Amino acid sequence: MTVQQACEYLMGQDEILILCHQSPDGDTLGSGFGLYYALRAMGKQAKVACSDPIPHQFSFLLPEQLPDFAPQCVVAVDIADTQLLGSKLSCWADQVDLCIDHHPSNRGYAQRTLLRAEAAATAEIMIEVIHGMGVKPDKKIADCIYTGLCTDTGCFQYSNVTSHTLRIAADMIDLGADAYRINRRMFGVKSKARIAMEREVLDSLVYAMDGRIAVIAVTGEMLARTGAQESELDGLSSIPREIEGVKVGITLREKEGGFKVSLRTVEKIDASQICAVFGGGGHARAAGCFIPEPLEQCRDKIIQAAQAACKEAGL
Amino acid sequence: MTVQQACEYLMGQDEILILCHQSPDGDTLGSGFGLYYALRAMGKQAKVACSDPIPHQFSFLLPEQLPDFAPQCVVAVDIADTQLLGSKLSCWADQVDLCIDHHPSNRGYAQRTLLRAEAAATAEIMIEVIHGMGVKPDKKIADCIYTGLCTDTGCFQYSNVTSHTLRIAADMIDLGADAYRINRRMFGVKSKARIAMEREVLDSLVYAMDGRIAVIAVTGEMLARTGAQESELDGLSSIPREIEGVKVGITLREKEGGFKVSLRTVEKIDASQICAVFGGGGHARAAGCFIPEPLEQCRDKIIQAAQAACKEAGL
Repeated sequence: MTVQQACEYLMGQDEILILCHQSPDGDTLGSGFGLYYALRAMGKQAKVACSDPIPHQFSFLLPEQLPDFAPQCVVAVDIADTQLLGSKLSCWADQVDLCIDHHPSNRGYAQRTLLRAEAAATAEIMIEVIHGMGVKPDKKIADCIYTGLCTDTGCFQYSNVTSHTLRIAADMIDLGADAYRINRRMFGVKSKARIAMEREVLDSLVYAMDGRIAVIAVTGEMLARTGAQESELDGLSSIPREIEGVKVGITLREKEGGFKVSLRTVEKIDASQICAVFGGGGHARAAGCFIPEPLEQCRDKIIQAAQAACKEAGL
Repeated sequence: MTVQQACEYLMGQDEILILCHQSPDGDTLGSGFGLYYALRAMGKQAKVACSDPIPHQFSFLLPEQLPDFAPQCVVAVDIADTQLLGSKLSCWADQVDLCIDHHPSNRGYAQRTLLRAEAAATAEIMIEVIHGMGVKPDKKIADCIYTGLCTDTGCFQYSNVTSHTLRIAADMIDLGADAYRINRRMFGVKSKARIAMEREVLDSLVYAMDGRIAVIAVTGEMLARTGAQESELDGLSSIPREIEGVKVGITLREKEGGFKVSLRTVEKIDASQICAVFGGGGHARAAGCFIPEPLEQCRDKIIQAAQAACKEAGL
């Protein structure tokens, strides 16, 4: 559906529940709370829910208190698949009235879907929805949208950034977003557990294909040793692909019964195609899948698939 | 002087020598070559000079060949002080006709100075000059200006970024700047030796005083093991101070006969005072000294001094 249709739909609703994805990041929270503040500014009842606790670096996005009510309308934000709702919100899987998302892999599980695959972040779409509903964004909304933009782009560093992304970020600064402070919170400070995890992860680094493929692992044991929380793992998966000469950067994350694979590629290699071998999907440069095997086997399998893709691409 | 005055001056000149500062960075080079391409597009003779070799990550900014001629006009770009001309260009110190710069500390050594201290980068001023001379920036100029903007702002992360900075970056992307590729070259790529050094350095991390003090070490052995070059150590010394809760971040760097100490502190603790204990000095937040001892003893001594300073500051 179009932004205008999504706006018209939302303007006709009240008592709106906004769902964020599990392991919440800056985009699902920034977009979710941005929408929340806009709906509140319109005099509507709204609340935000997430299966996981909200990491403390995002606490500045939260309102003083969230109201409680039985929702009449359910909106999913930045959620490509109902599996990402997490355990606490899985009950809403069949009842999502509207989904606003930028993942090309969105499964279309909602009654209505506003999907813009070319957007760097869902926040980029959300600000259009907010404008479209006639709400003038205040500082709080600007902080939310800016947070979504900067976190999903590695502070405007990734290939998903367009001139449009930068202009929206500029608009948010003009509307009062505290860009520098948000950047510091998101990128400038690391917890001791996070530093310990970086060390563990670098210890786990394995190269294949003469350094064209790099694989790191995050295991339950490492988490136990370092005491790191889920939210402290953000960005670790970009380490392998930042290494000179690496064409496929892979992060293996231990989950129940196997490993979740995050895969990043350079141009010419389709990450979603490699992940599709294992039933996963995603974007051309970033995709994921699950391999129900122990670490060694999982690593071997994904390296094999990545090797095949490198060869096919002539790299 | 105003941008318009600088444009009028430049438009009346030919055979223009553009000077970049020593240890050249993305802003002096991006602004310098941006001006070079604009002057060439106007049919003028121009060349760029720098006392130091141009690092290979900036090679994409260079023209195929630089002409040779006796300059009639000398322009210094992003150079606050003639000392920054470096040995090869110091002969021009008294002959700079125009300086374009954004450093508030600019010494006003040139005949004419276009200074905009509120600009995040000299590139932000340079694009106005280019427009002001009636040149429509092509992809090459856009790449140059974008490089200046992104390098002087840590990819739009620092406190100097304004909405204006982001809008210029957006314009450069629309004009063809290859933002993602430039970001990758500037920030996204680490050599395998650098990654190996990060691992070694994290392995060396020691906390003291309940995590208020963090110390890392870079030894000759580590350099031998990883094969890392001097230029691959940039930024490693900021690791300790980026850790949550750390009041004094210390980096020990092995040199002949002992260790060079770099010390960073948060407010209330005077780094130069701690280093003065060992005959060193510096600023309140960043200072250094040399301790002629083996690693263990050196670490013990600097930790003791830092502990005393923390206690004195009541931290």
